[in-house]
Amino acid sequence: MKIMRIDVGANGGPKVVESGLGEYEGFGGRGLTSAIVSREVPPDCHPLSADNKLVIAPGLLSGTTGAMTGRISIGCKSPLTGTIKESNAGGQPAQVLARLGYAAIVLEGKPKTDDLYVIYINKDGVKIETDNSLKGLANYDLVEKMKQRYGDKIACISIGPAGEMKMSAASIACTDMELRPTRHAGRGGVGAVMGSKQVKAIVLDDTGMRMREPKDPEKFREANKKFVEGLRNHPVTGKGLPAYGTDSLANIINEAGAYPTYNFKQGRFEGTAKISGEELAKIEKERGGSPTHGCHRGCVIRCSGIFHDKNGKYLTKQPEYEAVWANGANCGIDDIDAIALIDFLCDNYGLDTIEMGVAIGVAMEAGIIPFGDAQGAINLLHEVGKGTHLGRILGNGAAVTGKAFGVERVPVVKGQALPAYDPRAAHGIGVTYATSTMGADHTAGYAIAQNILKVGGYVDPLKPEGQVELSRNLQIATAAIDSTGMCLFIAFAILDQPETFQAMLDMINAFYGWNWTADDFTEYGKKILKMEREFNSRAGFTKEHDRLPRFFKVESLPPHNVTFQVADEDLDKVFAF
Amino acid sequence: MKIMRIDVGANGGPKVVESGLGEYEGFGGRGLTSAIVSREVPPDCHPLSADNKLVIAPGLLSGTTGAMTGRISIGCKSPLTGTIKESNAGGQPAQVLARLGYAAIVLEGKPKTDDLYVIYINKDGVKIETDNSLKGLANYDLVEKMKQRYGDKIACISIGPAGEMKMSAASIACTDMELRPTRHAGRGGVGAVMGSKQVKAIVLDDTGMRMREPKDPEKFREANKKFVEGLRNHPVTGKGLPAYGTDSLANIINEAGAYPTYNFKQGRFEGTAKISGEELAKIEKERGGSPTHGCHRGCVIRCSGIFHDKNGKYLTKQPEYEAVWANGANCGIDDIDAIALIDFLCDNYGLDTIEMGVAIGVAMEAGIIPFGDAQGAINLLHEVGKGTHLGRILGNGAAVTGKAFGVERVPVVKGQALPAYDPRAAHGIGVTYATSTMGADHTAGYAIAQNILKVGGYVDPLKPEGQVELSRNLQIATAAIDSTGMCLFIAFAILDQPETFQAMLDMINAFYGWNWTADDFTEYGKKILKMEREFNSRAGFTKEHDRLPRFFKVESLPPHNVTFQVADEDLDKVFAF
Repeated sequence: MKIMRIDVGANGGPKVVESGLGEYEGFGGRGLTSAIVSREVPPDCHPLSADNKLVIAPGLLSGTTGAMTGRISIGCKSPLTGTIKESNAGGQPAQVLARLGYAAIVLEGKPKTDDLYVIYINKDGVKIETDNSLKGLANYDLVEKMKQRYGDKIACISIGPAGEMKMSAASIACTDMELRPTRHAGRGGVGAVMGSKQVKAIVLDDTGMRMREPKDPEKFREANKKFVEGLRNHPVTGKGLPAYGTDSLANIINEAGAYPTYNFKQGRFEGTAKISGEELAKIEKERGGSPTHGCHRGCVIRCSGIFHDKNGKYLTKQPEYEAVWANGANCGIDDIDAIALIDFLCDNYGLDTIEMGVAIGVAMEAGIIPFGDAQGAINLLHEVGKGTHLGRILGNGAAVTGKAFGVERVPVVKGQALPAYDPRAAHGIGVTYATSTMGADHTAGYAIAQNILKVGGYVDPLKPEGQVELSRNLQIATAAIDSTGMCLFIAFAILDQPETFQAMLDMINAFYGWNWTADDFTEYGKKILKMEREFNSRAGFTKEHDRLPRFFKVESLPPHNVTFQVADEDLDKVFAF
Repeated sequence: MKIMRIDVGANGGPKVVESGLGEYEGFGGRGLTSAIVSREVPPDCHPLSADNKLVIAPGLLSGTTGAMTGRISIGCKSPLTGTIKESNAGGQPAQVLARLGYAAIVLEGKPKTDDLYVIYINKDGVKIETDNSLKGLANYDLVEKMKQRYGDKIACISIGPAGEMKMSAASIACTDMELRPTRHAGRGGVGAVMGSKQVKAIVLDDTGMRMREPKDPEKFREANKKFVEGLRNHPVTGKGLPAYGTDSLANIINEAGAYPTYNFKQGRFEGTAKISGEELAKIEKERGGSPTHGCHRGCVIRCSGIFHDKNGKYLTKQPEYEAVWANGANCGIDDIDAIALIDFLCDNYGLDTIEMGVAIGVAMEAGIIPFGDAQGAINLLHEVGKGTHLGRILGNGAAVTGKAFGVERVPVVKGQALPAYDPRAAHGIGVTYATSTMGADHTAGYAIAQNILKVGGYVDPLKPEGQVELSRNLQIATAAIDSTGMCLFIAFAILDQPETFQAMLDMINAFYGWNWTADDFTEYGKKILKMEREFNSRAGFTKEHDRLPRFFKVESLPPHNVTFQVADEDLDKVFAF
């Protein structure tokens, strides 16, 4: 495997240098992006400057015949948080990039002109084209153009207008199996960094390339088979997620009183039934979409789906639980068609659905539009896409929106919006939000599993006890899983089923000829977290930043009327390993 | 002396409680604001929340017959920087408030309604009136209304629309001897905190009150006489400042190559002669204004002036050097009438002239309007005053403006805009910008004196050597001076003339019956800095925040073609005392 470095600021235009993995041998996915960023990016640099690097890395097992290995990690210093960032997406690019032989693409430097570039990589090598006609193009139109130009065997990594405008809520889009830009590295404004490098799209075509070959093909095949069985047997990965998708959580989290509503003012939303996964699945079936669909080749969970509009025409992929929540309950909106349209608009303009929903919730708190105003929220999204001044505010996320409008209740940690679980009614996820190296991020240590879903054990969500240890263990495991290229949803099965966890280890060992034990896997996760923490520390982050906004400690949340009760001193123990 | 605490969030409306100084005995001005904020405000609170407090404190010698004692300190947790903040202003309120017997007014809590309050204090006590008819009023109109209502013996402390809108660049206006709102606690967004307390104005009338009486009136009179002689004898305080005001620096700093131009791209501006103090004085004389005028009773330096427009009508007070620079050279504008109008607009809307000029410079860098576009800059100020979306961006300062428009070169430290001296060509002030407890602030340790003016010694401005010690000593002395109520400009004389420094000490000792030595004065300064640093540390600030933006270290500044060269390790030694 090779690393392709592209210096977009070189004299005479972008310059490509390829090398082996060298000191980064053994790293993949998040491990590799965080290793490169922490070693090579000055922690005090401006995230939009030449000093920052955008690292795009498939996981250790991406590009193999292994199931669930289609996740890609995109890392940099985040313009949203100022921390190190790994933003993770599904779709096709991870598999294709890995099969092309690349462990990472690293975009470096800053162009001296305002040209916009397209990077095309296939079996014959890399071509970088200047194409200023693509300026301002939304993701769907862009991908259509790329298809016309490069054929339909491609996978695209691209930014929309938000990334070009270097907005801190800008995402990077990855195309799915239908060559639609629906899977996003959403969090942390990675799209703004790609925009600052003036790269509109990376187009990948692995035609003529073979699957990556394991060291021990037989063992690998065997382990993969067991692994897939494990996923199929577990109720979450085998039944819940395929049938109703991630939004099956809406009713569950609402019932638990942890569904943040009206900008985190209450834990239950009266309109939940109308925006639940069950409702989504029903509508998708009725309108000729699909409630069960994978986002990349090799997915056996297939938690996604296809959402059609009222006329039976494709509108967007099945909106994820967090996207539905952010632009639904959080904004007091119960119109699922409006939410699906917002999902499409975010994908098309290239925006993080979570950050946008929370920013709009803050704007609602400021009185810009009333809570519940679905058409108003849609209009705001268009303001962002057009880059109006209001759009510039919202498109830079909840923290900037709060600052612009003088709002006190702004649910962010390290500048990043809190996702779809109220930390007061799910203390474990609150510990993750507060302490994650990434800013508030549910995927960094998904304690909802134990707090509410009772997967991998049970820890009472309303009490502080046991949450620090829970979040710590999850954050460690997650850092390791995010490096494999595997979808994080495998965690449900490997947490509950030791034999499925072992099968995953066997896959890694058979592929690389390693002898990883469960402890080695844990150590790998710890090593990644330590690199990330160390970068953040050099960037000026301290324990005082590992805190939820004060209002979570003083405002109690109905219906349980609880505040967040984990003591600061305990939060400081999360990384004591 | 008493402390008046007003809980604006009390049931049934604001509630007043008065007490003695208690544990704060011996503190005044900045010492008192920083003591109260550091002890009473939770460092993790939102600056616009009920937990924050706005502390308004005249200095130790304010309200006496002592010369130069008319400075007021306004402290809180800053919405601009997130640090502790003391913002310092001239004008009449310090003297009047002290004569009314108050060492401080503390605004606490947060109203439950959206009512707007006026606080009126005279010899008979305090009255708090609800007056929603004042909403949105600019400072000049507001003061006019207060005059009609309360007579012309008053002094006002007020906010304009920017403070009501809780913008992070909002100032607090203090009226001058002509009862005009021209002297501002400009920095750090203190106006937003007053806005969050929903206090539009504090109106003070000391009619019937006497001067504060020294313990030893004879000694005090004698010391004051010597002090005044010292000020009159020094070339800066006796000649330069009275004749040409602070903007006499324009030619000097430009000549030194330290005059930041076009958003800190070069150190000399081709239009400097047209916006210099000499030009200002000439115009002021020609048009019937005045180049020599004090901002408060008891001022013997009289560095201010009165600026008339082309029709000979009052427009604004003589714009200060920093205001002229920020909205002049920094924006490539050499039209002094436009700059004076911007000065008036900032005073009227209630905005920090420095933060606004730098924010507009960043907007120019983003291409919103071109550099040099004076009418464009005026229009932008009106956007802020009207609270349009663009105005919401600019009115929240340079950092938010940079974020909104994806600009990399944003000259701020701890979120506060750098003032009028480029740190690359005046390394001492760079150390102050980087390390001050307040964010970038020239007044916190004015090394320009030794770097360029050769007052109080000489330290080569282009080299890193000696700058840390210089800044350290100045920051300590400044913290102490800012507590006396004395204007910082006395520093020119007391740095050069030991007998003038001794006279100042004698004034304090004669007034309070103390026995302060020079060392005691230094220890007092250190004590204040330590409280401030400790608050900031608990708020999450570390040595990594005591840094200039990276571009000052890598981009060299013409004409000297220098970068900022003080090593990080040396910056970390500033507070090693």
